[in-house]
Amino acid sequence: MSDMVRLDEGLAFMLKYENVAWYEDGKVRILDRRTYPVKVEYVECTRHEEVARAIADMVTQSGGPYTAAAMGMALAAHEARGMSEPDFIRHMTDAAYTLSHARPTTSRKMEAVTASCLSKAKEALRQGRRVDEAVFLHAIELTNLRYEESRKAAKYLVDKIPRNGTIMTQCFAETVIGMILRECRERGNNVKVICPETRPYFQGSRLTASVAYDMGFDVTVISDNMPGYVMKAKDVDLFTSAADVICMDGHIVNKIGTFQIALAASHWGIPYYVTGTPDRRHPTIDTVKIEERDGDLVLEAMGVRTAMEGVKGYYPAFDITPPELCQGVVTDKGIYSPFELGRYFE
Amino acid sequence: MSDMVRLDEGLAFMLKYENVAWYEDGKVRILDRRTYPVKVEYVECTRHEEVARAIADMVTQSGGPYTAAAMGMALAAHEARGMSEPDFIRHMTDAAYTLSHARPTTSRKMEAVTASCLSKAKEALRQGRRVDEAVFLHAIELTNLRYEESRKAAKYLVDKIPRNGTIMTQCFAETVIGMILRECRERGNNVKVICPETRPYFQGSRLTASVAYDMGFDVTVISDNMPGYVMKAKDVDLFTSAADVICMDGHIVNKIGTFQIALAASHWGIPYYVTGTPDRRHPTIDTVKIEERDGDLVLEAMGVRTAMEGVKGYYPAFDITPPELCQGVVTDKGIYSPFELGRYFE
Repeated sequence: MSDMVRLDEGLAFMLKYENVAWYEDGKVRILDRRTYPVKVEYVECTRHEEVARAIADMVTQSGGPYTAAAMGMALAAHEARGMSEPDFIRHMTDAAYTLSHARPTTSRKMEAVTASCLSKAKEALRQGRRVDEAVFLHAIELTNLRYEESRKAAKYLVDKIPRNGTIMTQCFAETVIGMILRECRERGNNVKVICPETRPYFQGSRLTASVAYDMGFDVTVISDNMPGYVMKAKDVDLFTSAADVICMDGHIVNKIGTFQIALAASHWGIPYYVTGTPDRRHPTIDTVKIEERDGDLVLEAMGVRTAMEGVKGYYPAFDITPPELCQGVVTDKGIYSPFELGRYFE
Repeated sequence: MSDMVRLDEGLAFMLKYENVAWYEDGKVRILDRRTYPVKVEYVECTRHEEVARAIADMVTQSGGPYTAAAMGMALAAHEARGMSEPDFIRHMTDAAYTLSHARPTTSRKMEAVTASCLSKAKEALRQGRRVDEAVFLHAIELTNLRYEESRKAAKYLVDKIPRNGTIMTQCFAETVIGMILRECRERGNNVKVICPETRPYFQGSRLTASVAYDMGFDVTVISDNMPGYVMKAKDVDLFTSAADVICMDGHIVNKIGTFQIALAASHWGIPYYVTGTPDRRHPTIDTVKIEERDGDLVLEAMGVRTAMEGVKGYYPAFDITPPELCQGVVTDKGIYSPFELGRYFE
């Protein structure tokens, strides 16, 4: 099918740096970000439930699950081939629920993706087209759209980075961080990048640092207890992260740790810019459920146990940054005050 | 020699929980805190330079180096047996410098320990006593004194912990955390303990959590990006840490991460109490040098590499918490405002 795919520059870029989830021949193949770059391994899913499991197990994260869920819908269509129309619709509706609810915090955003794939599947079925192919192409289209939004947001953000300045990141902002760095390179802005490592999965040291280094930037990893001190000691100009949810009331839900970095940035007068789109499915922070993952994951590092047996672990996956700690929400349409996000939709 | 040692309750307690450095038969033996409790191993030093190296390499940390340096002085006296008095004094003076300057941030406090051992050595030499034995007994005395100070401070701190409340720690506060928990147990205050893991060495998950769990407390480990969120989510009543230096101007130098936890505590209105003694050798923060350790140590976890080759690491070992983020300095004489530390010496 690949020759039918429109590889926008964003997608081509991401296929190099992230190996997005991909549907082909009744399988979805996902780069295992839990071990990259120490090992380059793929998880191969032959059922949509396995795609949901892979999302729940953090095989892919950040923007990855949106593409994975859409590709999972193509796989569900493959599973449903030959079914009667009512059975087909029931199967696809169940799959949409399973894939979008793999993790709780982003389920409303994920539902938008799977609902869109479901519509496309019904349309293709009525038109007598091959449904998995139609959903696969739609998944590519959605990914291209998302990457295009990131590309536009990155341009607005890079306007805020001083020439040859220093930025601090958080976790792996996926598409956006790649787009920001590409934009910097195109403008000849040789930024330095400081990446907190992001325990317990080390997305900062494994993923963000790898992309930045591979793109030729000066990149330094620190541990997650260091941002507050280092942002001052190393003259950081700007802290930036993506977000899993940006509520209409300006609260930002992102990888655990974002809040305390934003708080320290505010203490030092360093601006924090979040990239993403305000989400009308979340009018206030009260509508967001913070996912709690298995606490034992905090009691190990790179597969080695760190604490005595009997000690407990606690692992909230996200935290909440209040609007007063954020300088601006950087969208595809420009930068908005977190206190005036309604204007994005005007 | 051990039968001559006065095992105060503090020392007896610490020998159980920390296996403090110990001089015997021309050797200093130090529990390797870099691998405990995964492995229980000792570093054996037959020269005082090896003791200094062990301190520099973090075989022992927190309060450990003070005892190790004093025991190292006993070892230096053993090395100097049979020397002429001028050679003896030269050797001991050099050893005092080497041991106290193993790490830069605490060198002034360490000098006080080694200078005291040097005086004791000279006195014993003049009296014709066995010098290594005299210095060893002095090292025990100094350790007992330090533990007694901790014990008194712990009582003042525990007055501030609500019954069956929750405390958050930072790194491994060694003697003090043990004394705090023992005091809680004696008062029937069944506190819960939340320990950030403390990268890159995991002192929180390996050492603090082990002591608290072994003493029968409910203990939960989190990663270093979580304190800001968790202290609110889990209703933490009090954040406490020890300090490597408490300057007379109220600035607190402690394990990297303390500052951002204190900042978050201040944001949520949770008090931060630091235990320790104000240090007149440091009238202001400008007299403290923040140690920077090998950046590569941040690029691995439990011996496993986390980042791509070519990525740099940065590892400042301590940070600085300003006095306005601290509710009180908890000393052996009571609790003082960080803005009025001169009163401690009145």
